[in-house]
Amino acid sequence: MTADAVLERIDRDLPASLDRLFALLRIPSISTDPAHAADCRAAADWLVAELRDLGFEAARHDTPGHPMVVGTTGGEGARLLFYGHYDVQPVDPLDLWARPPFDPALEETPRGPVIRARGAADDKGQLMTFLEACRAWKAVHGTLPGPITVFFEGEEESGSPSLIPFLQANRDLLRADGALICDTGLVGDGAPAIVTMLRGLLGEEVTIRAASRDLHSGMYGGAAANPARILARIIAGLHDASGRVTVPGFYEGVEELPQAIRDQWQGLPFDPDDFLGEVGLSVPAGEAGRSVLEMIWSRPTCEVNGIAGGYAGAGFKTVLAAEARAKISFRLVGDQDPLKIRAAFRAQVRAALPADCTAEFAPHGASPACRMDTAHPAFEAARAALGAEWGTPAAYVGCGGSIPVAGYMKDILGLQSMLIGFGRDDDRIHSPNEKYDLECFRKGARSWARILAALR
Amino acid sequence: MTADAVLERIDRDLPASLDRLFALLRIPSISTDPAHAADCRAAADWLVAELRDLGFEAARHDTPGHPMVVGTTGGEGARLLFYGHYDVQPVDPLDLWARPPFDPALEETPRGPVIRARGAADDKGQLMTFLEACRAWKAVHGTLPGPITVFFEGEEESGSPSLIPFLQANRDLLRADGALICDTGLVGDGAPAIVTMLRGLLGEEVTIRAASRDLHSGMYGGAAANPARILARIIAGLHDASGRVTVPGFYEGVEELPQAIRDQWQGLPFDPDDFLGEVGLSVPAGEAGRSVLEMIWSRPTCEVNGIAGGYAGAGFKTVLAAEARAKISFRLVGDQDPLKIRAAFRAQVRAALPADCTAEFAPHGASPACRMDTAHPAFEAARAALGAEWGTPAAYVGCGGSIPVAGYMKDILGLQSMLIGFGRDDDRIHSPNEKYDLECFRKGARSWARILAALR
Repeated sequence: MTADAVLERIDRDLPASLDRLFALLRIPSISTDPAHAADCRAAADWLVAELRDLGFEAARHDTPGHPMVVGTTGGEGARLLFYGHYDVQPVDPLDLWARPPFDPALEETPRGPVIRARGAADDKGQLMTFLEACRAWKAVHGTLPGPITVFFEGEEESGSPSLIPFLQANRDLLRADGALICDTGLVGDGAPAIVTMLRGLLGEEVTIRAASRDLHSGMYGGAAANPARILARIIAGLHDASGRVTVPGFYEGVEELPQAIRDQWQGLPFDPDDFLGEVGLSVPAGEAGRSVLEMIWSRPTCEVNGIAGGYAGAGFKTVLAAEARAKISFRLVGDQDPLKIRAAFRAQVRAALPADCTAEFAPHGASPACRMDTAHPAFEAARAALGAEWGTPAAYVGCGGSIPVAGYMKDILGLQSMLIGFGRDDDRIHSPNEKYDLECFRKGARSWARILAALR
Repeated sequence: MTADAVLERIDRDLPASLDRLFALLRIPSISTDPAHAADCRAAADWLVAELRDLGFEAARHDTPGHPMVVGTTGGEGARLLFYGHYDVQPVDPLDLWARPPFDPALEETPRGPVIRARGAADDKGQLMTFLEACRAWKAVHGTLPGPITVFFEGEEESGSPSLIPFLQANRDLLRADGALICDTGLVGDGAPAIVTMLRGLLGEEVTIRAASRDLHSGMYGGAAANPARILARIIAGLHDASGRVTVPGFYEGVEELPQAIRDQWQGLPFDPDDFLGEVGLSVPAGEAGRSVLEMIWSRPTCEVNGIAGGYAGAGFKTVLAAEARAKISFRLVGDQDPLKIRAAFRAQVRAALPADCTAEFAPHGASPACRMDTAHPAFEAARAALGAEWGTPAAYVGCGGSIPVAGYMKDILGLQSMLIGFGRDDDRIHSPNEKYDLECFRKGARSWARILAALR
């Protein structure tokens, strides 16, 4: 089946497509902040209405957290399950945004027009590429492109607490022959890619407590345990001088990269100097002796994502805080076992506590790494379709970020996933001034039209 | 001169005295937060009105920061300069307060009634003990107790940026023969004390920066420098395993305690187990081989008063923050030079920075330690007066907190200071639920009446 008429339709409808995307971007669906629960519901409702308008049978499915959205349509052939997420990251620090994060706008830049808003790239803009491909397909062909199930989550940015139970409880509703996940990016400046290696994620929050209340640092300083200092020492002890993680057993299940993959990555249009330079850095800060692509795709990490204790506002407060806390994440690869690492990390922290101090832990997700079987013929078909749209062959690559849903699709639904997305490295996802290139949005929709045509 | 009639008057007027104190406590004069500048001005104006009502010639003196208040009255004999501060500490975390911090109330406790409010002990309740002694004196004698200058500051809790220039510019206005400073406490459960050793304070804020913006920890984690980790390593390196500070040259000018003082301290009604136990601790956390009183009175320290970086709110954000910062304070003793230590600290931090990282420093005060000459006869007179009021002899003690004004009184005004106050260890100054015992307030006012009578 040729996609030409659909591609033309996508280009012609671009202004209306943008209007639809902007309407979704205006909803501040920050999933990690309970104050935005109603906004998450509103985004889900917006998607249900959009799916129904497209001819899907669609519903909002409430969970103990934020709702899921599922839309299905019938037809001949293999059923594809498409996944995206409608929730977004928090926007702080707000003062670093050049415009309000939920007031999307098209901005001209030296490298072309961009869509500026929280969620533009992660993941509202991306999920809309698929719906716009479906919309154009229907306008041209009168029907949607075969049996499709669309599945949108609203907790991807907050650890997906409802995802596993929902998948387990809805195996029939979500039954399909393969999954498409749109939450990844291009390689370098514009080479299309299919992600076949995903790092896992283990999130931990640790709170160190000592005195029963905040203390005056003059009155008690020198005699009382200071949780901020203890936490700093614990964090400093998580890496050795070569940048390796010191948690006992951490590297069990971590394999060296096969030479074939190493060779393929060396041929990618990826310049480590550009990658780091774009964010003001020049020297890779990870494990000694590893390439930047290894550091972000195939090596595990331990990072501090947040730390807080005492008075950090304007001025100075001579306080010894009763507690200090840190949010720490581990990116996992190969066969690393998140639960074993969680236990080893907690034991390491507890062993480092001096007298009178306690550590409290809160889990924030634990998903192992995930690797795809690229022998399935759909991979080569999608690779060719992407190559035709972008003018350069698609590559099988790794992904530093965690997309746990790919693992759950496999484990719970028995589905092989293809992870295809159109974000760029400079999209500032999770940061102030997130953007999505208009060209990525347009060619993303066109890519899905070509992939759907190739798979039908 | 006997103080009996004045003491009786103080007891009889206690309810009205409390009303006056409560009015002052209701003004949220948090000096470190620019949003409370008008409240600081209001507290200064309240004190000017109070002083005028007492018969002082009083005025508010505006500064580039918060105003000073000076009141003078004439009379025969040596002139005494009384110092207190009307500004208070911030109140966060607000949710730990059992009642609104600026809605003072008298609360019954198993150990007697307490005045509950931010500033009750530090320092509004304390400065009012002196004004109430003056008020009772005037009611009995018809005049104030001899030539007195009252001097109130509004920036004590925020580094006193205007204090030195104000003292330098107002030497004539503040000319006196000796100073009384009321910002300290009792020893243990109720032994009166005159502080003769004060630790100095050096405050530093350091901000570590790496990437030009916040980064996604999946996309960049493992390859990009993480300021929160770098800051933790720097903080962890500020102490060695024995609890000594590692800043080069830090212990220059630190002397061992004379045996006579060591003996005197061993006789104080101070129980280190009670002192630590009252705040939920059991093991002194400072330098190995030092007593708790040494740790808080005669040894220097380095503490983290605040640390912040990345996302520390509800939930989890997989971010590598572009910056992390800490507020660090050094308590100084003997002849330690704050400016030399500041330079050495900054050099140590800079030397610890990896590639692509910068450190920015902001100073928050630098005052050396201060020691009093107890040979002056006023010290023995005040000691006797305090002993008569409290039924136990007053002791010469150290003070862990910094009261830089004592040093400035000496250096700029040429005044010897007597530091006398009535706070208790469990007053929770700088913490939620600050209080001042009603008995300390009453006996504090009576103490000043006795001291004034002894010095007249």
